[in-house]
Amino acid sequence: MEITKSNLLSELPGIEEAIKNASFLAIDCEFTGLITSCKINPYDTPEEYYQKIRLCSKDFLVIQFGLSAFRYDTGSKSFKEKSYNFFLFPRKFNKNLPDESFLCQVSTMTFLINAGFDFNKLFKEGIPYLNREGRLQLQTYLDEAQKIKNKEPVPIPDHLKSEIDDVFKEIKNFIKSGDEERVLNTSSAFCRRLIYQSLQERVGDVVTLETRFEGDDRTLVVSHSKTGKEIAEIHRKIMREAIGFSEIIQLISKSRKPVVGHNMMLDVFHTINRFLVKLPEDYKSFKDCAHCLFPCIFDTKHIGSHMIFKDIIQSTVLSKMLHSLLQKPFNPPVVENDIVGLAKPYSVLEPREHEAGYDAYITGLCFISLWDYIGKKIGYKGSVFENINVLGPYYNKIYQMHLRDVPYICLDAPDVRPSREHVFYISFSKTWKVADIVQLFSPFGFVFVSWIDATSAYVALNNRENYPAVLKSLAKSTAYKIMTYSQHQAILGKLKPDKVGDKELEQSDDLGVVVTRDKRKRKSTNDDQSGSAQKQRKNLTESNESVLFNSLLVNKTPDKAFAEDDSWE
Amino acid sequence: MEITKSNLLSELPGIEEAIKNASFLAIDCEFTGLITSCKINPYDTPEEYYQKIRLCSKDFLVIQFGLSAFRYDTGSKSFKEKSYNFFLFPRKFNKNLPDESFLCQVSTMTFLINAGFDFNKLFKEGIPYLNREGRLQLQTYLDEAQKIKNKEPVPIPDHLKSEIDDVFKEIKNFIKSGDEERVLNTSSAFCRRLIYQSLQERVGDVVTLETRFEGDDRTLVVSHSKTGKEIAEIHRKIMREAIGFSEIIQLISKSRKPVVGHNMMLDVFHTINRFLVKLPEDYKSFKDCAHCLFPCIFDTKHIGSHMIFKDIIQSTVLSKMLHSLLQKPFNPPVVENDIVGLAKPYSVLEPREHEAGYDAYITGLCFISLWDYIGKKIGYKGSVFENINVLGPYYNKIYQMHLRDVPYICLDAPDVRPSREHVFYISFSKTWKVADIVQLFSPFGFVFVSWIDATSAYVALNNRENYPAVLKSLAKSTAYKIMTYSQHQAILGKLKPDKVGDKELEQSDDLGVVVTRDKRKRKSTNDDQSGSAQKQRKNLTESNESVLFNSLLVNKTPDKAFAEDDSWE
Repeated sequence: MEITKSNLLSELPGIEEAIKNASFLAIDCEFTGLITSCKINPYDTPEEYYQKIRLCSKDFLVIQFGLSAFRYDTGSKSFKEKSYNFFLFPRKFNKNLPDESFLCQVSTMTFLINAGFDFNKLFKEGIPYLNREGRLQLQTYLDEAQKIKNKEPVPIPDHLKSEIDDVFKEIKNFIKSGDEERVLNTSSAFCRRLIYQSLQERVGDVVTLETRFEGDDRTLVVSHSKTGKEIAEIHRKIMREAIGFSEIIQLISKSRKPVVGHNMMLDVFHTINRFLVKLPEDYKSFKDCAHCLFPCIFDTKHIGSHMIFKDIIQSTVLSKMLHSLLQKPFNPPVVENDIVGLAKPYSVLEPREHEAGYDAYITGLCFISLWDYIGKKIGYKGSVFENINVLGPYYNKIYQMHLRDVPYICLDAPDVRPSREHVFYISFSKTWKVADIVQLFSPFGFVFVSWIDATSAYVALNNRENYPAVLKSLAKSTAYKIMTYSQHQAILGKLKPDKVGDKELEQSDDLGVVVTRDKRKRKSTNDDQSGSAQKQRKNLTESNESVLFNSLLVNKTPDKAFAEDDSWE
Repeated sequence: MEITKSNLLSELPGIEEAIKNASFLAIDCEFTGLITSCKINPYDTPEEYYQKIRLCSKDFLVIQFGLSAFRYDTGSKSFKEKSYNFFLFPRKFNKNLPDESFLCQVSTMTFLINAGFDFNKLFKEGIPYLNREGRLQLQTYLDEAQKIKNKEPVPIPDHLKSEIDDVFKEIKNFIKSGDEERVLNTSSAFCRRLIYQSLQERVGDVVTLETRFEGDDRTLVVSHSKTGKEIAEIHRKIMREAIGFSEIIQLISKSRKPVVGHNMMLDVFHTINRFLVKLPEDYKSFKDCAHCLFPCIFDTKHIGSHMIFKDIIQSTVLSKMLHSLLQKPFNPPVVENDIVGLAKPYSVLEPREHEAGYDAYITGLCFISLWDYIGKKIGYKGSVFENINVLGPYYNKIYQMHLRDVPYICLDAPDVRPSREHVFYISFSKTWKVADIVQLFSPFGFVFVSWIDATSAYVALNNRENYPAVLKSLAKSTAYKIMTYSQHQAILGKLKPDKVGDKELEQSDDLGVVVTRDKRKRKSTNDDQSGSAQKQRKNLTESNESVLFNSLLVNKTPDKAFAEDDSWE
């Protein structure tokens, strides 16, 4: 179902209900661009990586948000699904508030228009939103607007004095009249300014002035001043309209339901940053913040990349993965559309790829099929879809496609820290090319060269076991400088242990979430299925059922860079 | 007539003809945003102003360009007009070229969609363009693509060896066949990479590989290698398509016809920067560059702001100014639409404000009416529209709406440098508000305060004649620091004389223009009417006819800030 600013309020109760009843929520975002040209190095640390992605993606907008609420029906042993496709566009609520600028990437806009994206609908009908910082800014503005503006007075030129006098005569007539408001006849913006500055002095605060905009036309309107109560009600309405779509994300966060995405790193970044709270500046705070706001996240690209699917999922590109997951050996249960009213439900028979609502929908289908398969694979005896804990090892891991040896980031635990003892830092003169490096390292076999800048690179041995000989053999030359990866990291002063949860987050009461130093003391606003699922999961990961997974969760490093469809071309 | 990438080439001859035959060309641009939040101070120098506007506007795009070619018909004593509305959007011609990001302003996008702008058409059908830097970049890329890529070889994993062998069998079959090309069956991007890296070694350079993109799908296609001549022809076609709309602007520049805009500062900036050559970093070079590319420019907002129109033009907002200019005392000649074929011509009876083509059209109508009026006003005896020199004093002056006392910038002469002896620089503690400054200066009458930052401001006396007493009276306090405007400018080290033409521009042969140290030696590629008009004008400005103008061209400073419709609200 398509949601724009025209039908958001009328559909809100239905959406709230769908979230409340869901077993899990699948989401997807469309953006105006992905990442500006920041130099991510395949051997960046997760901290370096976070900083680069945060800064290089933050100026793009989320312009479409897909939400698919899946509810497992224990009676019919089938899923019911309700999907929503939200068009999102910020609004400038007042000319005195900052005029937001945002970035677009040429390739992304072209990609979306070719996928059928309706930009006219976006700019005309997009729903606004505000994160916490935006709400505070608007609230401050509304509060300040109440105070009388002390603009520096400008002298009234002689030739305008009679016009100003006439307008004040008209205002005095209006005050005596029973009219609700009156349009004042003014010849210029400067005249309007003169009237504003003289209002208090000439007639007091019984009336209020307002300049209305209509295209290039501006008119000055006078009305009777409102009571404090009336103003508060107007402000409440403005605020709710401005918060707009953020209300949906707050509902999702408060529900603490499992949230499922596909290759969802940017989706998580933007969903937090745009709709909830500005992304923290440091990586650990980000992990705490994300985990606190969305305590149970699954990334179907991470799950589908697992070794157990190596031979049965050919590609983890969403539409291709779905194709695999709808046929043998997968055998997902029936999913029925559950939208009431006139909205046409999504169907894989009429694919609408890259429409956020559709992509959220098929992400949910993928998730169900993976869940079913994994439940059977580990020999789970109960009703698989009543226990999300069968997915224990995949909890809160987000697929990560840029670092060579870190396949995912972990929101609720320290990240994988693979050995980089086979990686060397080398700096050299500007004339060096890849061939020079390959030649230098040729005694140790193939190497993977990742440039840091024009005069330095990380060089990784394909035959890792050769690493002890490298410095012995190469460290003597003065034509270049070589050191181990960890020596270089130590120089950068960036080799700090990654302790999750050692930093206190700001309290964010309006989201119903309090984060304390010990994450396990987190206070949940409702004690629903998924909240308790999380507790169960803590036990599960220590139980026998997880052993199979732990043995399967091998570091897929050697294959990753050579098997990833998205990253090569 | 609407021009998109679908009909640009077929309409190009007609457009070229229209430019060639025109008496003048009216232009207008629509942008994705105007200026990001840079702090322009009303007392910035023109140099400071240029730097701020250049940096704060350069990341927005021109998305629509209106061109209206007006031809005066001496027989019928009427104008014929052909108008074009170009949709413009850059294209990423190759995945290896940088993916351009651009800025949009929320308010602008909302404004345009409400004015009926078709963004879907823009992103789907927009014509690409390249400035000189973009052309060089693409040319370099095309040249380099010819060289065999020396990618670092990666080892072929055992399980892929047979697939790679099969593909090379297929390639060898293809070489023997008479087929033009063949799609190769590959299982992954990594396999394709392995094939690319082994091609030279296994079959030499008789065939060429290409990866084709279709949505998420990528296929590897092999074809027979082309001859140098065939490749050159392909590159020529790619280049011309990429240059796209820039060809039109080159035609306009080479034609040296008068170019007319309304409030055209940003139009000139972007037209040069996006379609011709990156804007110079310093202001003097910009003026030289702009004047060299467009030797005869008129800004109808500048003309319409002149004192002689004070009582007959109520507003210089384009549509409102047109309204004034179509009625008495103005009496413009007939303008007939001259588009051939099926395109529906523009008409003021069906206004399409903020469509670039329409705005260019009505800018042209305004210009004709102003030209006519001025010709009669100065008592010009000949056929006004056969002598653009009656507009002599308005040549190459662009309306400037941000600086308080500089009403226009002058492309071919030093700018107006009004006295700022009544302006003072003052710095103070963070606690100061406007009221404190107003209070401090109260012995000298009203002041205009323009904040530089939270702890400093320029303060201008409304009663200029009071300036000598200010420092005597206020310089003693230690609670703040005060100095004259010129003392402050001297400290900033920015008080340099503005000498136009003292800097040599880069030669830009591809535009048919050579700039030498002495601008008067400029070589024009064609000796047309407007080229010679310019020479005539040099004489005119020294003749009697210009005396009236010179007396009219009073500094309109005292009124400007209080009479400008756009800047107050």
